[in-house]
Order: sequence, then structure tokens, then C-alpha cells
Amino acid sequence: MTNSETEPLRPVVWHAHNPPQRVPGTVRYLDQTRLPGEVVYIETDQLDELCRAIRELQVRGAPAIGITAAMALAANLQHGPDETAELMQQLELSAEKLAATRPTAVNLFWALERMRRRGKECRLLPPESFKEELALEACRIRDEDAATCVAIGRHGAALLKDGDTVLTHCNAGALATAETGTALAPVYQAHTDGKRIAVIADETRPLLQGARLTAWELIRGDIEVTLICDNMAAQVMREGRVNAVFTGADRIAANGDTANKIGTYGLALLANAHKVPFYICAPFSTIDMQTPDGSQIPIEQRAPEEVTAFAGARTAPEGVKVYNPAFDVTPAALISAIVTEHGIIRGDLKSGIAAARQ
Amino acid sequence: MTNSETEPLRPVVWHAHNPPQRVPGTVRYLDQTRLPGEVVYIETDQLDELCRAIRELQVRGAPAIGITAAMALAANLQHGPDETAELMQQLELSAEKLAATRPTAVNLFWALERMRRRGKECRLLPPESFKEELALEACRIRDEDAATCVAIGRHGAALLKDGDTVLTHCNAGALATAETGTALAPVYQAHTDGKRIAVIADETRPLLQGARLTAWELIRGDIEVTLICDNMAAQVMREGRVNAVFTGADRIAANGDTANKIGTYGLALLANAHKVPFYICAPFSTIDMQTPDGSQIPIEQRAPEEVTAFAGARTAPEGVKVYNPAFDVTPAALISAIVTEHGIIRGDLKSGIAAARQ
Repeated sequence: MTNSETEPLRPVVWHAHNPPQRVPGTVRYLDQTRLPGEVVYIETDQLDELCRAIRELQVRGAPAIGITAAMALAANLQHGPDETAELMQQLELSAEKLAATRPTAVNLFWALERMRRRGKECRLLPPESFKEELALEACRIRDEDAATCVAIGRHGAALLKDGDTVLTHCNAGALATAETGTALAPVYQAHTDGKRIAVIADETRPLLQGARLTAWELIRGDIEVTLICDNMAAQVMREGRVNAVFTGADRIAANGDTANKIGTYGLALLANAHKVPFYICAPFSTIDMQTPDGSQIPIEQRAPEEVTAFAGARTAPEGVKVYNPAFDVTPAALISAIVTEHGIIRGDLKSGIAAARQ
Repeated sequence: MTNSETEPLRPVVWHAHNPPQRVPGTVRYLDQTRLPGEVVYIETDQLDELCRAIRELQVRGAPAIGITAAMALAANLQHGPDETAELMQQLELSAEKLAATRPTAVNLFWALERMRRRGKECRLLPPESFKEELALEACRIRDEDAATCVAIGRHGAALLKDGDTVLTHCNAGALATAETGTALAPVYQAHTDGKRIAVIADETRPLLQGARLTAWELIRGDIEVTLICDNMAAQVMREGRVNAVFTGADRIAANGDTANKIGTYGLALLANAHKVPFYICAPFSTIDMQTPDGSQIPIEQRAPEEVTAFAGARTAPEGVKVYNPAFDVTPAALISAIVTEHGIIRGDLKSGIAAARQ
């Protein structure tokens, strides 16, 4: 890793073995659990391996999870029978398995549904064409997400001026998406535009995505980054060091309430107390019109060991109880604006979201 | 460690070798950097070793630091010359060394000043009596702190009712004081009084005093404790799980502004946003009348490695900048009350503090 590295960071891609044919192909992903120490890409076409990669956070970030799930469906079909009707059944069964990996991110369900729909559209094709079309659809999901990141970056960069410092939580950067991220896309874009932008990264306990991933990709992108512990955010705001908070989202309800990494809600309260604008950056597909408000969003509870041990060393006494929700919900009232690929939604988020869907 | 353990937890004591004589004696302290894995007591009369114990947080917590510093002065005098005037000089030099170990905790300076004063009072005594009197004074500081903890516990317990859950940050328990703690003293007292009290402990990054120390001593004391990451505090408050926040203090300014472990200020903001009362528990000696308000309190900055590595494993990329303040200052307006050994100071804290000093 050097600052002169200029290859875009692509955490999940489809590796076609005989291009321009998409099939046969494999899914190539960066194992994010080994960052920042090791940069290791894994290549596989096995469904179980890809389910585990999502469940165990080797791939994480709502958009990247959706891309990986779509590619996992396509990769798995390659091992399928020579009968399109049976391939359709296999697609359904695989989609159910993938849907069970992470409960909160709506992009996962959105991507699976899109692949199912494409399957139905292609149900009269011969099996080989069916497999090819589904692989192509998975690649389209990735490419569209890359374009979405660029568009979010353009809209969001308008909120930043030369010399600004952005505070961010968790990782909603290139590593969470197809390419440049959601929350970090405006930072990368503003940097490309020649503005001097610095980032303060919350380390984001318990899994330290801010320390391990956000700091890593920003240094790789030659952007100034300062790491803090989550509990220092109020202090850096009070010292006037933060011009705006940008985070991603795992699911946005129809009224604008937003589920994101645990700690986001507290950060939004602190930003409001210090009159720092608080922006959510997310693809429009993160908005779930089936969920009227945040109270309807299921919150994943994760294992106590994420909190009680680190790098194999125990940090808390045996027998201690742990509460470890992976997400929280930030009420729409605390959100200054939602930055999507279609533009910025401000003011009353519920009407703004409804209007943007027209 | 078992729940049936009934010995009071005493993190720092003077071990007199020929009681009732205090001299010769050694300082016996629990090495808190090895908790919760190992319970190791260290015994020494060496000034440098005790300075290091304070600087490297083997002993931590404002009252425990004061006690250790006083005992370190007394222990060091035992190696001193046979001339009281020279012992006085040695006392001064040692006090300067100890004062340089930690800049924020006022109890440290308070304890050193009290030992200096006692030295002046005893300046006409023969050297052996001088040493004995100074050791006795250090022991009095410890015993008075133990009594202070009990009194804080009695006053604070009145704020708790059966079934309440207290959220606390860092460790202001027995391990931070002579015996039962400041913030945790009301919990222990209410438990002794037969109330069912549960505690939610913030893990308290970067050094995890909540996970390592608070959880350990509460389990030892048979009190129900649930560990969370710092960034989960807003969520547990929002879920209505917290009836009160209790923390300790490293220094309280004359107007009530309070320096405490980094994260306390943010927690106070979150408590206020959720209408959860926020209490500071501290010995009266923590109030520094020489400091008119919080802007005058120096904030110790600690090493980046506390944030970028854990248990020998690197958690952030090489070259990342780190901001690592050890403390923050909570404005008086966010504090519901200060619980001291003399009673509870409420309302306008500045007048309350002034009145309590009468």
C-alpha cells in the first residue's frame, strides 16, 4: 500500500474466465477481516463460502453485500442442472440462504429480488443463456452501484468547502460499495476537485471498521485522516474541529428514519447539540418504502465475543453479560439531509422521499 | 475470584512490617493493567517504581492516585538521611517527581500538598519520628478516603430505587479509591440495603477500564452488570434501560464544570437528550477552588498506540494520525447533581459548591 497507488479500490468484482462471456466466472472479493494488516483477495464460486463471507463480515457494507449476494446467485447457477426451470428453483433456494445472512441491510433483499425478477424474465431462455444473463445482471448491479457512488459523490461534494473536516462513523467508503463509497464518496470527489478535505474517523467498536477500514482506504487515497475512539466525538465537535458528519445507511424507512452502524444515533444527537450538520449518504435503493418508520426495522444482535475479546485476548471478565446491537436507528428529525445518486433530500424527509420517487 | 468473595477490595494499602509502628513499611498495590486476567499485587518502597505505577496506570482513579502518591512519599523517606531538614528536602523533590506523573487529577496535587504541610508541622521532630508521622499521614489519607466512599455511597444510594439500572463510564469503583469507589459506592450501598440494582458499564476506550475493571469488580461484588461499547449508550438510553448515569470526576472546577474520563461529556449530552439524570460522585477534595471553570483544566493527551494497537495487535494502518485526549470537561449545566461525602449539591452548582465550603 502506497499513497501513489492509483488503481480504484474494488472490494467485489466478477472475474469472467473467458471474456466477453460472463460465464464461467468467479467472485473475487477482498477479505476485509484481514485489513489493515494484510490485503488478501479471495476468489470463489461456492455459495456457502460467499454466505459465510457476508455473515462473517469479510464483505460488509450494505451496497457491497447486495453486490456479493447477486454475484453469489450467479456463481452458484454455474453448478446447476441443464434445465432452466430447475435453475429457477435453485435461484430461489440460494436466495433464501443469502437472505438469512444479515437481517438489517435492505440492499441485500433488494439485490436478491432483482436477480429473481431477472430470472423470471429469462425463464424461457436455454440454460446456458439463463446463466449468462443472470451473471450479466449481477455485474450490472455492481456497475450501477459504482455509478451511484460517483453521483452521490458529486451531489455530496457540493456540501463541502475547501478546508472542511468531515467526521465519519464505521466504513461507508469504497470498501462498503462497488467503488468510491457512499459517505466517503463526497470526500473523494471534493479531494479530486482540488479541495483540501480532512476526515476524522471514529474507530467504531466493536469491530473497528473505522480504524481498520476507513483509515486504511483514506490513507491509500492520500486523504488526511485522524483516528479517534467513538467516545471522543463529542469532544472534537466541542473543539470546533468538525464541519459536517457523513455516514452511510443500512436501511432508510419511508419517513427518513435511518438504520446504520451502532453509534450513529448517538453521533446524530451530538452533532445536533453542537449545530454540526448530519448527512446520510446512500443509494436510493437503501430507502425501503415497505418500512413506514424506524420502529419497524429489525436490529441484528451480534455475538458477545465481539465485545469481550480482541485479537484472541480477553478484555472483560468471564461471565459478564453483554448487549451488542449491530445497528441503531437515527430519527429523521436529527438528519440534516439524505444524499442520494438522484440528488439531496432536505427538509421534511418523508415528503422529500415521496417526491423523489415520482 | 468468586461471587462469595467477601473481603473488601483495597487497591492500595500501606503494609507496616512491625505494627503498630508504621515504619518500616511498603506500599502494596493491585496491578490494574493485568485485570481481569490476573490478580497480582505488587509491594514496593521505591519511588521510581511507584511513579511508574501511576504513570502507566497500574494504579489509576483520582483518589487512588492521591493515596498512592502520599504513600510513595512516606515509603521513599525511609531511605532518607538522618537529618529532618534533609528529609524535608527529599520530601519536596519526591513530591515534584510525583506531581509530574499525571496532570489532570487534582487529588494527586491535593495529597502531595497535604503531605508537604504535615512535613512542615513535623519539621522539629527527630528523623525517625518524622518518618513515622509522614507514614501515618499517608495512612490517614487512605482511611479518610475509605470513609468518604462510604459517605458518598450513603448519600448517593438515596437517589436509587429498587429495580433501577445505573449506567457508568470508566471505573470509579473500589479500584479507583481506597475501598468502595465514588460512582459505584451508591450502587454497592443500595445493594447492601437490599435494593436490586443493575449496572450497564461502558467499556471505555481506549484502555477499557469499564470492561476490564468495572465489570470485574461488580461481578466480584455480586452485582448484575452488562457490558456495552461506548457507542451503544445512546441506544440503551433510548430503549429506556437506564434510570441514572453515575460517573466519577478527576477535577471539579469552582463552577461545577467537571473533568472526567474522555466520553463523559458526550454521555452527559446523551443523558440530557433522554431526560436521564446525570450524577457526578466525588470526594469534596476533587473540587478545585483555584480553577474557576472547566476551560482552565489541563487535558492530558496520551500516546497514539493506546488507540492503534490492542494486546500487541495493530488495529489501524501505519501512519494514521491519532487524537487521544484522556479527559473531557462536562459543563455544569449538564450535571443534575454532585454527590460528595458531605451531601448532594444540586441546582446552581457554583453557589452550591460555595455554600458547601462554608
